[in-house]
Amino acid sequence: MTYQAPVADIQFTLTHVIGASALAETERFAEATEDMSEAILTEAAKLTESVLAPLQRPGDLHPARLENGVVRCSPGYAQGYQAIAEGGWVGINADPDFGGMGLPMTLTTAVGEMMNSACLSLALNPLMTQGQIEALEAHASDEIKALYLPKLITGEWTGTMNLTEPQAGSDVGALTTKAVPNSDGTYAISGQKIYISWGDHDLAENICHLVLARLPGAPMGTKGISLFIVPKYLPDGDGKPGVTNRLNPVSLEHKMGLGGSPTAVMAFNNATGWMIGAENTGMAAMFTMMNNARLGVGTQGVGVAEAAYQHALAYAMDRKQGRSPIKGGTGTIMDHADVRRMLMTMKALTRSARAICYDCAYSLDMAKATGDAAWTARAAFLTPIAKAFGTDVGSEVSDLGIQVHGGMGFIEETGAAQFARDVRVTRIYEGTNGIQAMDMVGRKLADGGTAAEALLDEIEATAVTARDAHPLLADALQDAGECLAETTRWMVEQELNDRFAGAANYLRAFALTLGGHYLMKASLAAPGDTARLALAQFHLRQLVPQVTALALSAQEGAEPLYALSVRDFAQ
Amino acid sequence: MTYQAPVADIQFTLTHVIGASALAETERFAEATEDMSEAILTEAAKLTESVLAPLQRPGDLHPARLENGVVRCSPGYAQGYQAIAEGGWVGINADPDFGGMGLPMTLTTAVGEMMNSACLSLALNPLMTQGQIEALEAHASDEIKALYLPKLITGEWTGTMNLTEPQAGSDVGALTTKAVPNSDGTYAISGQKIYISWGDHDLAENICHLVLARLPGAPMGTKGISLFIVPKYLPDGDGKPGVTNRLNPVSLEHKMGLGGSPTAVMAFNNATGWMIGAENTGMAAMFTMMNNARLGVGTQGVGVAEAAYQHALAYAMDRKQGRSPIKGGTGTIMDHADVRRMLMTMKALTRSARAICYDCAYSLDMAKATGDAAWTARAAFLTPIAKAFGTDVGSEVSDLGIQVHGGMGFIEETGAAQFARDVRVTRIYEGTNGIQAMDMVGRKLADGGTAAEALLDEIEATAVTARDAHPLLADALQDAGECLAETTRWMVEQELNDRFAGAANYLRAFALTLGGHYLMKASLAAPGDTARLALAQFHLRQLVPQVTALALSAQEGAEPLYALSVRDFAQ
Repeated sequence: MTYQAPVADIQFTLTHVIGASALAETERFAEATEDMSEAILTEAAKLTESVLAPLQRPGDLHPARLENGVVRCSPGYAQGYQAIAEGGWVGINADPDFGGMGLPMTLTTAVGEMMNSACLSLALNPLMTQGQIEALEAHASDEIKALYLPKLITGEWTGTMNLTEPQAGSDVGALTTKAVPNSDGTYAISGQKIYISWGDHDLAENICHLVLARLPGAPMGTKGISLFIVPKYLPDGDGKPGVTNRLNPVSLEHKMGLGGSPTAVMAFNNATGWMIGAENTGMAAMFTMMNNARLGVGTQGVGVAEAAYQHALAYAMDRKQGRSPIKGGTGTIMDHADVRRMLMTMKALTRSARAICYDCAYSLDMAKATGDAAWTARAAFLTPIAKAFGTDVGSEVSDLGIQVHGGMGFIEETGAAQFARDVRVTRIYEGTNGIQAMDMVGRKLADGGTAAEALLDEIEATAVTARDAHPLLADALQDAGECLAETTRWMVEQELNDRFAGAANYLRAFALTLGGHYLMKASLAAPGDTARLALAQFHLRQLVPQVTALALSAQEGAEPLYALSVRDFAQ
Repeated sequence: MTYQAPVADIQFTLTHVIGASALAETERFAEATEDMSEAILTEAAKLTESVLAPLQRPGDLHPARLENGVVRCSPGYAQGYQAIAEGGWVGINADPDFGGMGLPMTLTTAVGEMMNSACLSLALNPLMTQGQIEALEAHASDEIKALYLPKLITGEWTGTMNLTEPQAGSDVGALTTKAVPNSDGTYAISGQKIYISWGDHDLAENICHLVLARLPGAPMGTKGISLFIVPKYLPDGDGKPGVTNRLNPVSLEHKMGLGGSPTAVMAFNNATGWMIGAENTGMAAMFTMMNNARLGVGTQGVGVAEAAYQHALAYAMDRKQGRSPIKGGTGTIMDHADVRRMLMTMKALTRSARAICYDCAYSLDMAKATGDAAWTARAAFLTPIAKAFGTDVGSEVSDLGIQVHGGMGFIEETGAAQFARDVRVTRIYEGTNGIQAMDMVGRKLADGGTAAEALLDEIEATAVTARDAHPLLADALQDAGECLAETTRWMVEQELNDRFAGAANYLRAFALTLGGHYLMKASLAAPGDTARLALAQFHLRQLVPQVTALALSAQEGAEPLYALSVRDFAQ
C-alpha cells in the first residue's frame, strides 16, 4: 500500500468545513482562490505520492548516521529533499519579496500534512526551515534577511532551532549557553544543545542554527535570553558558504523512531553568531516561531494518522479471514464489527484533528489579513489543541493501525509499527502535550474565557443548524458544548495549579467536541452524503459521550493529586 | 533504575483484596498459606531483581538470531533460563506427581507478573512451557505424561504452541497442516506454522511443539482439528533426546519489540508426532491451554506496567526542572500536577489490572479446589477482561512512562520505549483484544448474564460497605455498577453482531469498574492508609466516570458501523 494524498477531502475540508475561500476575499491572500488551492494540492499530491512516500521505509531501515564528524542521511533523502526544494515547497508561505510564494498558512498546513503522511522524517527538515524563515521575517535586521531568507526559501540552506540543553528541557529559562560580544558586532557562542532536529546533514550547502543564549550579565531566567543565528559555514562576501564555523554535531540520538531525521547533540565553541532582534528578547522571538511550529507538529500527527489509516484500511480490505459475521459480506476482516469500529475511530479522529489544524491555520491567516485581535486569539486558543490533540491522534490512530493488522502489525516489514514509532516524539517535542494543556488553561484562558466562548458559540450554532435534520446528533453536540462552557467558567475562576490538574482532560474534551462540530458541519455541507453523516454520527455517539466524563474529572482540582507523598508513589 | 519486586503490594492484594488465604482452607491447596506465599514471593523477588532484570536491555540490543539453521539467544539468556529452571519456577503450579510444586495459579500469576516485569521476552519461555504442561496434564495419555512432564517441569525441555498458519490467524479452523498416521501409531506432521514464540532456541536440550493439524478426511473447520506433540529431538529408549525430528525454524520475525524472544516460522516435513487426546478434539484441548495462557498474557501486561511505572517514577523523582508550582516542593517534575496525574493513572491502572488477573487466577484455583461451577464461570468471565485490560494497561502505562520522561522517553538508551515496544504484541497474540471482547459478550454472556451479575453483586457490596466512610466514592462505584448491570441486560437480549459492536467498550467499562471495586476494597482493608484511599479516589473520580460514556456507546448496536460501505472507508 502506498500513500494516496486525500486531495478531495482536504479541499472539501478547506472549503466547506473551514470556509477558507474567504481568504481570497482579503487583500493579503487574494491569490488564494479555490482554483489555486486545488492546483497546489494536486502538485503536492504528485510530490508526496511518488517522490516522498518511497523514502519512508529507507529512513527507518537505514537511519541517518554520524561518520567522522559528518552526518550521512538515509538513502534517497538527497533526491527527495532536492525535489522539495526545487518545487518551491520550503517557501510556500514565505514573503514573495525574498522568493517565497506568499500563500496562506492554511494551504501550507494542508501541504505539510501530505508531506508528513508520505515521509515524516524528511518532512521535518523543511518544517524547521519554515519556522526559521518566520522568525527571521518577524525579527531579523534587513541585512540578515537579505542574506539568509533567499537561501532558506529556495532550500539551498536549511534551518534548525537550538533551545534545549541537558539541564533545561521544558524549562527553557534555565539554559546556560553563552554569547560574548566580539569586536565586530558578532557574538561568540559557546555551549551544548540537545535534541537538535536536522542539526547536521548532507542535503544542503549550509545549515543555519537559531540558538538561544545568554549575554554576559543578562538577567536570570527567560528574561535574559537572546536569539542568534549561527551558520555552519560563515557566508563570504558573495553570500556563499565560506569559512567553517566553530560548531559541530557531537552525536546522534538512537531513537524509538524517526530514524531518517538526524537528532543531534550540537556543540558550539566560540562559534560566530549574529543577534536576531534586541538583547534579552530571544524568548519572544522564539515564541513566534514556536507557536507556528506547534501547529506544524500537530499537523505531523494528522499526516501520520492519515497514512496509518490508509495503510490499515488497505490491509483490512485485503485480508480474508474466517466466516463472515454478516450476510453479503466481503469475506475480509472488514466484515467484522470491531474492525469497523477501529477503522471508523481512526477516520473520525483523523478528520477531527485535520479540521482543528486547518482551522487554526486559517485563524492565523485571517489574523494576518485583517489584523483583527479576535482572529489572533482564536488562533492562539486553537494552537495547543492542534498540537496536543493532533499528535495524540497520530499516536492513537497508528496504534489502532497496528491492531487492525493483527500479528502482522508487530512485524516491522509490514510498516504499521513504524508509523507509531515515528510519530511518538511529536507528543513530546515542541512542548510536551502536558505543557500544551497547561498553556491552554493558563495563557489561553487568561482572557477570562473569551476566545473559548467564541468557539463554543460556533459549536452551538452548528448544533442549532443540525437540529431539524438530526435532532439526536444536535443534542449530543449541544450537550458537549454546554458541558465545556461550564468547565471553562470553572477553569477561569481557579488558581493556576487547579487548572493545571484538569488541563489534559479539558483539552481532550474540547478537541473531541470540536471534532463533532467539524464533522457535523461537513455532513451538513454534503446533504446526500451518507458516509459523512455516518462518520459524524459515529463521532458524536461513540467518542463525544466521553466529554461529560472528561469535564467532570477536569474539575477535581489539584488537591487529590497531592494526596500521595513522593514516598507513597514508590510504595 | 532497576526493577524492585512489589512484594508488599502483591501480598496485600492477594490477602486483602482477593482473599486468597481461603485457598489454604481447601484440601487441594492446603499448603498455600500466607507464610508459604510470602516465602515464594520473596524468593521470586530475588530471582527477578538480580538475575532476570539485567537481561531486559540485552534482549533488545542483541535480539535472538537464526544462524545456519540454529537460533542463538541474546547474551545472558542461557544463565537466566537456567536460574528459572533450577529454581523450579517452570513447574510452580504443575502436578507434584511429576515433580511440580502444585501451588495455586494465584501464586503462579503473582510470580509470573514479577518475571514479566523483569524480562518479558525471557519470561515468555516458561509461560509457553506452563501452558503445555497444563494441556498434557489434562489431555495426554499416561505414557506421554510420564515421558514429557518431568522434563518440562524441570525446564530441561521447553514447550511451544503451534496454532497459526499464514492463511489462518484468528480463524484457527482454516488451518491446513496435515497429520498422516504412520504404521507405528505415530503421525507424520507436515505444514508451516507462523508466530511460534520460542519455536527454536539454544537454552534447553529439547523443544516440544504442540501442533494443531488435520487427519486425512477430517471434517472442515475447528471440528476436524487434532492435537499432536512433536519434539525437536525424538526421545530415545531412555527418554533422552535422540534422533533429530523433521522440523526446523525457517526464519525469525523482525519485530517492533520483544527481540529477546525468538518468534519463528516453523516448517514440519513429515515430522513425527504423537496425538494428544482423541481425534478431532484438538480445539478443546487447545482451549484449555489457551484460556490459562490468556490469563498469563494479561499478566504480561501487568508486569510491564509495573516495571514501566517504577522506571518512570524513578526518573520523575530525580529530574529537576523549572520553578516548582507548589510550596515546599521537591524541585523535581514530581511537583507538577500533570506529571502526578500521569503517575497516578499509571499506578491506578496497574493495580486494577493486577487485581483483575489475580482474581481470575483465584477463581481458577477455587474452581479446581471446590469443583463449584460458579467459580469456573467466574474465572471464564474474568479471563477475557484479564487478557484484554491487562495488556491494554501494559501499553497505556508504558506509553505514559515515555511521556513522563519527556525527550528522554524517545531515546532508546533510556529504556522507557522498550517497555512500550515489547508489550505491544500482548494485545495481539493469544487472541487479539478485539477477540477477547467478542468472547466476553458472546460465550461469556451465553449464561444469560449470571456470571456478570454475580460480579456486579460483589461490586455493589463493596459500594455498600464503603458508603458510611466515603459516600461520594461509594456513589461513583455504585453508579458504575448499575450502569454495567443495565448494559449487561441489554447485551444478553441482542443479536450477536450487535453485542460485538459494543464489545470493546463494554469490556473496558467493566474493567474500569472492577478496578474501582478492588482499589476501594484495598482502601477499606487499610483504614489508616491515606495513599490507598487517595488512589481509590483518583480511580473512581478520574477514570470511572468514563464508564457511563462507554456503556452508552456500547449499546449503539452494529448498524451504525455498517453505514459506511467499504468504498466509503476509502474516500
